[in-house]
Amino acid sequence: MEFTVGQLAALLEGKAEGDENQTVNRLDKIQDGKSGGISFLANEKYEYFLYETDSTAVIVSEDFIPTKSYKTTLIRVKDAYAGFTKLLEAYTQFTKAMVVGVEEPSFIHPSSVIGENCYRGAFSYIGKNCQLGQNVKIHPQAFIGNNVKMGDNCIIHSGVKINTDTQIGNNCEILPGAVIGADGFGFAPQPDGTFKAIPQIGNVILEDDVRIGSNTTIDCATMGSTIIRKGVKIDNQVHIAHNVIIGENTVIAAQTGISGSTEIGKNCVIAGKAGIVGHIKIADHTTIGANTGISKSIKKSGQTLFGYMSMDLKDFLRSYALFKNLDGLEKRIKELEKKG
Amino acid sequence: MEFTVGQLAALLEGKAEGDENQTVNRLDKIQDGKSGGISFLANEKYEYFLYETDSTAVIVSEDFIPTKSYKTTLIRVKDAYAGFTKLLEAYTQFTKAMVVGVEEPSFIHPSSVIGENCYRGAFSYIGKNCQLGQNVKIHPQAFIGNNVKMGDNCIIHSGVKINTDTQIGNNCEILPGAVIGADGFGFAPQPDGTFKAIPQIGNVILEDDVRIGSNTTIDCATMGSTIIRKGVKIDNQVHIAHNVIIGENTVIAAQTGISGSTEIGKNCVIAGKAGIVGHIKIADHTTIGANTGISKSIKKSGQTLFGYMSMDLKDFLRSYALFKNLDGLEKRIKELEKKG
Amino acid sequence: MEFTVGQLAALLEGKAEGDENQTVNRLDKIQDGKSGGISFLANEKYEYFLYETDSTAVIVSEDFIPTKSYKTTLIRVKDAYAGFTKLLEAYTQFTKAMVVGVEEPSFIHPSSVIGENCYRGAFSYIGKNCQLGQNVKIHPQAFIGNNVKMGDNCIIHSGVKINTDTQIGNNCEILPGAVIGADGFGFAPQPDGTFKAIPQIGNVILEDDVRIGSNTTIDCATMGSTIIRKGVKIDNQVHIAHNVIIGENTVIAAQTGISGSTEIGKNCVIAGKAGIVGHIKIADHTTIGANTGISKSIKKSGQTLFGYMSMDLKDFLRSYALFKNLDGLEKRIKELEKKG
Repeated sequence: MEFTVGQLAALLEGKAEGDENQTVNRLDKIQDGKSGGISFLANEKYEYFLYETDSTAVIVSEDFIPTKSYKTTLIRVKDAYAGFTKLLEAYTQFTKAMVVGVEEPSFIHPSSVIGENCYRGAFSYIGKNCQLGQNVKIHPQAFIGNNVKMGDNCIIHSGVKINTDTQIGNNCEILPGAVIGADGFGFAPQPDGTFKAIPQIGNVILEDDVRIGSNTTIDCATMGSTIIRKGVKIDNQVHIAHNVIIGENTVIAAQTGISGSTEIGKNCVIAGKAGIVGHIKIADHTTIGANTGISKSIKKSGQTLFGYMSMDLKDFLRSYALFKNLDGLEKRIKELEKKG
Repeated sequence: MEFTVGQLAALLEGKAEGDENQTVNRLDKIQDGKSGGISFLANEKYEYFLYETDSTAVIVSEDFIPTKSYKTTLIRVKDAYAGFTKLLEAYTQFTKAMVVGVEEPSFIHPSSVIGENCYRGAFSYIGKNCQLGQNVKIHPQAFIGNNVKMGDNCIIHSGVKINTDTQIGNNCEILPGAVIGADGFGFAPQPDGTFKAIPQIGNVILEDDVRIGSNTTIDCATMGSTIIRKGVKIDNQVHIAHNVIIGENTVIAAQTGISGSTEIGKNCVIAGKAGIVGHIKIADHTTIGANTGISKSIKKSGQTLFGYMSMDLKDFLRSYALFKNLDGLEKRIKELEKKG
Repeated sequence: MEFTVGQLAALLEGKAEGDENQTVNRLDKIQDGKSGGISFLANEKYEYFLYETDSTAVIVSEDFIPTKSYKTTLIRVKDAYAGFTKLLEAYTQFTKAMVVGVEEPSFIHPSSVIGENCYRGAFSYIGKNCQLGQNVKIHPQAFIGNNVKMGDNCIIHSGVKINTDTQIGNNCEILPGAVIGADGFGFAPQPDGTFKAIPQIGNVILEDDVRIGSNTTIDCATMGSTIIRKGVKIDNQVHIAHNVIIGENTVIAAQTGISGSTEIGKNCVIAGKAGIVGHIKIADHTTIGANTGISKSIKKSGQTLFGYMSMDLKDFLRSYALFKNLDGLEKRIKELEKKG
């Protein structure tokens, strides 16, 4: 889609200096700006890019005073960064939310209902007895199993698989290839060395404002529910096992794994590739570093943990500094032994 | 689906105490029990939940003697836990196995055959020259490439991709998004720094009773076969490279990776996020801890290994305990140096 | 497909010794050779397999002199290994490239164009304003979003999801279940503890000759482009975050994760399960070991790094050897303390 500089200035409640009829159709970084793009200048450190950019327009603060000549058209607004963010959001809302209607062939069981203003992409599948809210976008090749409930304004991307009995709140977004509510990994060892599957009859509950990354997997509970609370944001390729509970507004980065029945507190930050064993509790406001292994409950809130078997971050770094030079320590012992 | 309390008592060869015509349609934990649910009480520690639960019925042992009043209906059976497990299994079999027939549009090449009592979901794809057994369930959007053979009673969930020449035994289950038999990662370095793909013309063999988790990937062999033996259970997001062989009844937890041409013995237990290098052999009955790195063959069976570069579990924990206080060790050396 | 021994001898510019009308339809390892297969003998160490193999034909060097009797038919060529590789490549090209045409139902928006000699599998989806080159193979259930550009000779396997605005060069191959160009993980913390999504409006660029493994995820840039340069080869379940740049001919093994805005040099080799933090630069020709954590820029090219927090490989191994026996070090200190 294409807008005139004048339209964007109006949207941003700002003022264009130059030809308002030029059109832009792209948001560009100021240093990479090309004709047809709009950029912003908020940090004076980057001012020199303004004098070189080929962006058609640049958003600047209303009190910005150029010190050289430039080719672009300025749009003066109260706060350049806030203005650009507003534009970004409008752009994203527009591109994500605009798609409406049904592409055929697509499948919806007659017993299921879906609200107004929704999208069902080609080759999407909705099973029996589902109830989906308004403004829901089910992208191509997404799978919604039986008895799934979903609130309003959810975006389910291509190839997502949401399995039987999953419950999803409002304003959730699930990225391509994620698998929600498939069976957990539970097997009872038999005397002959084989394993018998323990039936997994629970479900997954995603509360409001949850975001799940690409190819992430969240298993259903053995019984009861695996629960992802309001506002949780999960990155790509994260694994959440059966019966885990993640507290409100916790953020989990890519490739982290959380084993069965563990409860994570609210407002935690878990970096990439962390591993958390099963059946423990992590206190609220815990920060867990990248690739950190957590094998015991964390009871005190507000700690920052790191390491192969997690420790206080500073303690780990001190130990690791000495580990790097263990050879030196050993030589000092040898020296003492010679003297002794 | 809905059952009467009397029907369930009969199924469990037990006896209902109360109105046998009440209906239940859900299995609940006793502490979360609501009307319409059935629960069980096997552990006397949880007895007090019985007096509070809103479950319509609770399975108890035939010799259970209540000490307070309760609202629920008891179903007395020989062994409450075994009874509940039986119910769980019946429930799971029923829900998983019941779906039969073809949803359209779906694709099956005329050269392929599929047995009786099967399900082919909408948007599922079956390529050329495939032979699929009886009671096979191919869920929506699953992909079966050319020349795939599959035994009886297999469940292939939504969005699974099974590539050319894969052979699958009986009673296998593959969870959503898993990729079986795609090309392995083999490249020959060229003098100019580029890489040339080494053709991957082998396949994957899954023997009977194998279970593969969501979004797991199992690569085809360069030549010959990547083999997952009878009874192996693999969790989500596991990566198994080309030409790997996994022995019977081995269990592998989430996010573990096994590099090319490695052979894992039988009855091994590999915890989550473990990493095993290529071209080695792991003895039978080996236990590998979470996030453990294995870089050499394990020849003696029955060991328990752990650590960044794997060690005997106890040895690692002793070393790590000292690592945590390396600072203290260094101070003691300093003290000795002062004295010396 | 089936060939006569004579046809294959001609293809390899070699000479068959025996019945040229026998047919083969499979490439076998010489030790596993069965009737209908063709194998090769290049390494004299394996010569004894020749006298036992049931392969219909075996490729040998023109100067090979057998020392015992054998049942198979020899095809003599200049270089047996090169000959077999040629056969492998012909086989792979043939099987991968041969599929042409459109299977229905499939979806392509009328505003999109696709070149000659292409394949669009059943249930594949191509959105608006896409431009796809010649000889492109879009396998069943693959998803191509809006405004995607793709060069010639690309193979997009089943269930791949390529999102809006992605640009792909020539000769790229993307394996099943990979997700290219979905939103990156960017959230701005709000004063109330919640997070607000930062719009991700950039894209992904794959240059020529790029290969992406199964279930790998490559996020779009926040603004600008996530760039995978010419000749890069990426294995399964790798995660590449927003705005990352990977240099030419770099190879990345399975389950590695690279955080946002990091730049990897060219001709690097990154082993499996490595983790690289965001906003750093890795020099050209760097080798990163399996499960290695990289938390700082690597400025000197040509290094080999390893370890939980990466070190020079040799240094790490020396430290780890001492770590394994920290108990022994502590005892020596104790001994010195006793004496002191």
